[in-house]
Amino acid sequence: MIDRKKFIDDLHNIRDKSPLIHNITNYVVMNFTANTLLAIGASPVMAHAPEEMEEMVSISSALVLNLGTLSRKWIEAMHIAGETAKKQGKPVVLDPVGAGATSFRTGTAKNIIEKIKPDIIRGNASEILAIARAGISTKGVESTLAADKAVEVAKELAVETGSVISVSGKTDYITDGKTVHRVDNGHFLLGKITGTGCAATAITGAFAAINNDYLTAATEAMMAMGIAGEKAGGETDSPGTFQVKFIDELYKLQILISGYQDTNKS
Amino acid sequence: MIDRKKFIDDLHNIRDKSPLIHNITNYVVMNFTANTLLAIGASPVMAHAPEEMEEMVSISSALVLNLGTLSRKWIEAMHIAGETAKKQGKPVVLDPVGAGATSFRTGTAKNIIEKIKPDIIRGNASEILAIARAGISTKGVESTLAADKAVEVAKELAVETGSVISVSGKTDYITDGKTVHRVDNGHFLLGKITGTGCAATAITGAFAAINNDYLTAATEAMMAMGIAGEKAGGETDSPGTFQVKFIDELYKLQILISGYQDTNKS
Amino acid sequence: MIDRKKFIDDLHNIRDKSPLIHNITNYVVMNFTANTLLAIGASPVMAHAPEEMEEMVSISSALVLNLGTLSRKWIEAMHIAGETAKKQGKPVVLDPVGAGATSFRTGTAKNIIEKIKPDIIRGNASEILAIARAGISTKGVESTLAADKAVEVAKELAVETGSVISVSGKTDYITDGKTVHRVDNGHFLLGKITGTGCAATAITGAFAAINNDYLTAATEAMMAMGIAGEKAGGETDSPGTFQVKFIDELYKLQILISGYQDTNKS
Repeated sequence: MIDRKKFIDDLHNIRDKSPLIHNITNYVVMNFTANTLLAIGASPVMAHAPEEMEEMVSISSALVLNLGTLSRKWIEAMHIAGETAKKQGKPVVLDPVGAGATSFRTGTAKNIIEKIKPDIIRGNASEILAIARAGISTKGVESTLAADKAVEVAKELAVETGSVISVSGKTDYITDGKTVHRVDNGHFLLGKITGTGCAATAITGAFAAINNDYLTAATEAMMAMGIAGEKAGGETDSPGTFQVKFIDELYKLQILISGYQDTNKS
Repeated sequence: MIDRKKFIDDLHNIRDKSPLIHNITNYVVMNFTANTLLAIGASPVMAHAPEEMEEMVSISSALVLNLGTLSRKWIEAMHIAGETAKKQGKPVVLDPVGAGATSFRTGTAKNIIEKIKPDIIRGNASEILAIARAGISTKGVESTLAADKAVEVAKELAVETGSVISVSGKTDYITDGKTVHRVDNGHFLLGKITGTGCAATAITGAFAAINNDYLTAATEAMMAMGIAGEKAGGETDSPGTFQVKFIDELYKLQILISGYQDTNKS
Repeated sequence: MIDRKKFIDDLHNIRDKSPLIHNITNYVVMNFTANTLLAIGASPVMAHAPEEMEEMVSISSALVLNLGTLSRKWIEAMHIAGETAKKQGKPVVLDPVGAGATSFRTGTAKNIIEKIKPDIIRGNASEILAIARAGISTKGVESTLAADKAVEVAKELAVETGSVISVSGKTDYITDGKTVHRVDNGHFLLGKITGTGCAATAITGAFAAINNDYLTAATEAMMAMGIAGEKAGGETDSPGTFQVKFIDELYKLQILISGYQDTNKS
């Protein structure tokens, strides 16, 4: 179970240390992602030129790889950045956006997982299942896409890959293969604007930058997202205003760990 | 004339079916476009890698091509995606952003129109006139840029290309070469933020995805944009807030077909 | 010292003439930059294809080069656009985003400064110092990053490059090597959202487009940014809402040149 005091401490640490989070992410969400990282207290940088990957990773505290608007050139940059981060012992978080939608995305995700060995993989249930189906997980895979059905697959995937798996949905499940954390915070409007999943991944990077217990870091990130979402959702019923209020609430985040409970099923 | 009931039905259908709209669009508007599509009930995907164009089109219900921040690589992707969509009988909507500004843009628009034969072309008066001037329309072209003066040119262009032509301005005109629909809804603040034209094109894709009468679909999209703009404009007089409220109003869209009338001039 | 009447006149001129500002800028800020330019009354265009650089510059009134999400292809476009603008006597503004962070960025900034000779260089203190350190300024460089300590370096850099140097920080300093203008307007929330520095650069381009006294133009741009920031900061204490209100206040900008004073140290 996540300690409330630890969560508060980690939030304070992000603000105090303002870790630089290097994002190789998609065009759609770059502005929103940068603003969510700033709101929570971290420093964002977006950069993708192969020529500067090593230096940029070297001054950063975490690396976030997001497959949202993929192209060959960017995959090349992701591999250079990923290898550099791993060599330097810096956390790498992968968001396999659209895995399962095209073989290009599924294959790229699989390749990054095998070669880079990201510390945390954060996706929705269908993306996590797609990765497992791609042969990374060898056991049979449920075809259903509900997050709770993805838990067993996520646990297997965590064991095989050595990555913490963070599956987002109405309830989020985060597992290292043994322990399963469950986060019930959230709001349906988080699904009505673009980029909240990607923001969750970037914020996972921010927590991982200051807490090397990645299971805890990944869980705390989903708590921060969910709590800010709940608070924003209490102020509006429409997505345009929600997007704005969500940034406000991340910035103002007061600790209110409602709805959190440990389900530790292992 | 657009049937009010049909407009309401089509709005409901977008929400019920949540069609996946594949956008190859410009960097400036991607976030806003994705959020407008989500607000109206559709599902956006932005993807441009040639490697995944066929698969992405295959799982989508409409394709939107937008020339806003053009480059050679993306044009290649547009052609693959466009040809795939046409083969599969899926609607293709073209937004010739900046046609007339540079020969690269005018030429790319012309080429896509000739090779892909988009079902709907949506642009402002100067873009539509630039396309006609580029030799796609063979008759003389008015040099004036007002939308109402572009109507005759749009009708000719529709006949020659076989595309529905949607010309946006203070009043929007939509024509298949025979019938001309006119939409008077709108608000001047729609022109004070970036990306509303591009959003109109994406929403045209959403209506075309659930209504294969493309003249009607293109008209309904402009109605939805205009009505949401009017409602947002009733809540603020400044563009920052307007952008937020516009998304809210698209989401809350209640049917209020004010200002709409058929001018059926043919 | 900046004349209040001149500032008001220049603001009116931007709105009346609506100069087209050609931006080759980074993905993160494109939407926000376009909306800030529209809010102040200018017309934004974002374009980067080498094929259309000459034509696009030819119809524009100023060129803004921003190194935020750099890649080889875009650098190529920047050089073509920059050379075209200089040949045509149009102002070129450079924002060396991240200079000092990687040698790729520092080197690219240095190269553009030497080859294109931008009329104005606008960056934060650490970026300006990094450029000076890169050997463009030959004298010793202070290692501290506060804007006020960067003033002397900025003055030297201005003399050597022939560019107006605009250093942003809590207080902004703008110098042509002889005169130093100082702008105290601003609000701390400007630093809590992404893209305000990039917006300042784009707005510098808008003022330079209608005022060829670039020292004055660059100063007025920082005043406009700072005043709009102060007004937005008076309406909210959170960054999401601040971003929205900032656009509103740029749009509504009433002249209120508080906090401005000439420090003319030379």
